[in-house]
Amino acid sequence: MGHALAIIGLGKIVRDQHLPALAGCESLTLAATVDPVAPPLPGIPHFTSTGALLDAGIVLDAAAICTPPQMRAALALPLLARGIGVFLEKPPAAGMAQAALLANAASASGATLFAAWHSRMAAGVEPARQWLAGRAIEQVTIIWREDVRQWHPGQPWIWQAGGMGVFDPGINALSILTAILPDAVMLEGAQLEVPGNCQTPIAAQLALRSANGVPIRADFDFRQEGEQTWRIRVDTDAGPLLLDNGGAVLTLPGAAPAAAPDTEYPALYRRFAELLDAGTSDFDLAPLALVADAFLLGEAVRVDDFYE
Amino acid sequence: MGHALAIIGLGKIVRDQHLPALAGCESLTLAATVDPVAPPLPGIPHFTSTGALLDAGIVLDAAAICTPPQMRAALALPLLARGIGVFLEKPPAAGMAQAALLANAASASGATLFAAWHSRMAAGVEPARQWLAGRAIEQVTIIWREDVRQWHPGQPWIWQAGGMGVFDPGINALSILTAILPDAVMLEGAQLEVPGNCQTPIAAQLALRSANGVPIRADFDFRQEGEQTWRIRVDTDAGPLLLDNGGAVLTLPGAAPAAAPDTEYPALYRRFAELLDAGTSDFDLAPLALVADAFLLGEAVRVDDFYE
Repeated sequence: MGHALAIIGLGKIVRDQHLPALAGCESLTLAATVDPVAPPLPGIPHFTSTGALLDAGIVLDAAAICTPPQMRAALALPLLARGIGVFLEKPPAAGMAQAALLANAASASGATLFAAWHSRMAAGVEPARQWLAGRAIEQVTIIWREDVRQWHPGQPWIWQAGGMGVFDPGINALSILTAILPDAVMLEGAQLEVPGNCQTPIAAQLALRSANGVPIRADFDFRQEGEQTWRIRVDTDAGPLLLDNGGAVLTLPGAAPAAAPDTEYPALYRRFAELLDAGTSDFDLAPLALVADAFLLGEAVRVDDFYE
Repeated sequence: MGHALAIIGLGKIVRDQHLPALAGCESLTLAATVDPVAPPLPGIPHFTSTGALLDAGIVLDAAAICTPPQMRAALALPLLARGIGVFLEKPPAAGMAQAALLANAASASGATLFAAWHSRMAAGVEPARQWLAGRAIEQVTIIWREDVRQWHPGQPWIWQAGGMGVFDPGINALSILTAILPDAVMLEGAQLEVPGNCQTPIAAQLALRSANGVPIRADFDFRQEGEQTWRIRVDTDAGPLLLDNGGAVLTLPGAAPAAAPDTEYPALYRRFAELLDAGTSDFDLAPLALVADAFLLGEAVRVDDFYE
């Protein structure tokens, strides 16, 4: 049977990724769903609120919270207080203060808390981390350029305050960066290009630096038509390492590109089950801290209005 | 003699506050100063860089870093690595990622790290915290309105990216708020009024909430002429508690206002000496996290250009 899990929020990402991943995960069993408007899944108990779920007396070991970020902390806190393990879609909270609160709540009750950075599970990421561990790193260049009209159609929230704009995909790059480098990363400065009719940036250039001084540049852009680019290049004393397609394709110096099928979400749930088994947490806030810092420290420049 | 301390950055706040406070602190001895441009103090060894200070072979137990926030982490890291305790003026870092790095560095070397929130040492704050501990809190209202031309003349950095604008004083209010409430505080939303010719807000309205649901409103404004207001009002089941003058004056229900002389910086150094004696740290990032969240989640509205 495995751990009994509820999914809270039944949106597109759940139907596309979470449900297929769970179907292949022996350690977790879908025990209930919660959504105020989406229809139930066949044969799975369904509730329109977490309050109703908790009142129903269903035995739960864990919950995956896949709602928009703004409401995740309020949903997670009563679960954590009952010792129910919580899987949080990225970003794990709407802000650093909420994130700290969740960490404290999990620590107080002993419940498992998992910040699920799916891009860290891309096939090339762990091999890249291992290869870099033995190298002198000279510089890092991130190019994350995609067409927002193609990937985020009909998502006005992304342009509203808190929606993060181009950092919605960009935080995936930062989650990989902070996983593969041996040292912590700081933000030194940023330029944010904000359309006149939006609250969040459509493009951003970041200047970062690792704790031991490696310069890192990131170029995020939502206006990329034609070829889409999700690349991290790490220059080392042994030549350049390339991660392409969002971490799926790894190219080491002198070698052919190595690709593998996408198993990000199955790997996320395997990891969550391991955390539940061990009674521990994995709640790394480094990617979110860098985004918060880009807004705190960045220079905003006004650019052309954006219309979908 | 007490702990040997270096002061890094000899600006106005050091001459006004740090030096008099140190002169009255038996547990700390000023052993050196560092500043690239300011003149030395009579009889105190002086250096133009921390590198030169460390090369000089002076025995140091501690350092107070009072430079602009942007460079503090880079200055603090080599000190912490050597086991030298670090006192950081507020805010303790330029961003959450730098702050996390500092915490990790102190933890790794065992050095003391102190985020010095001076407003928490205002006379009314600790009595307010104690009085509130036994009360049911209904709501909190913060009004922090001052005249930027009076308090920050000739400080263009405050309007540049990373300068935080009205959050430079506002973070003092947040440091008191997070000290006196028994529960953690989250930011739910914010409106930031940004002059067309500035990068940072001249006013901000924040909607916050404590972990157990208490609504909190904050009104920060740099455009206040005439009477200046630094007030926190906490409504409780036993009536309202008022903290005025930035925490210096406490008024409990049915009682006369209680005021005391300003001893914020002497209290900060006393606390730092205690931390050094105990070999522990006090590095609370809650006020900075709330400011970062206000920039991350807040809605910016354009207001009139500001000219000093």
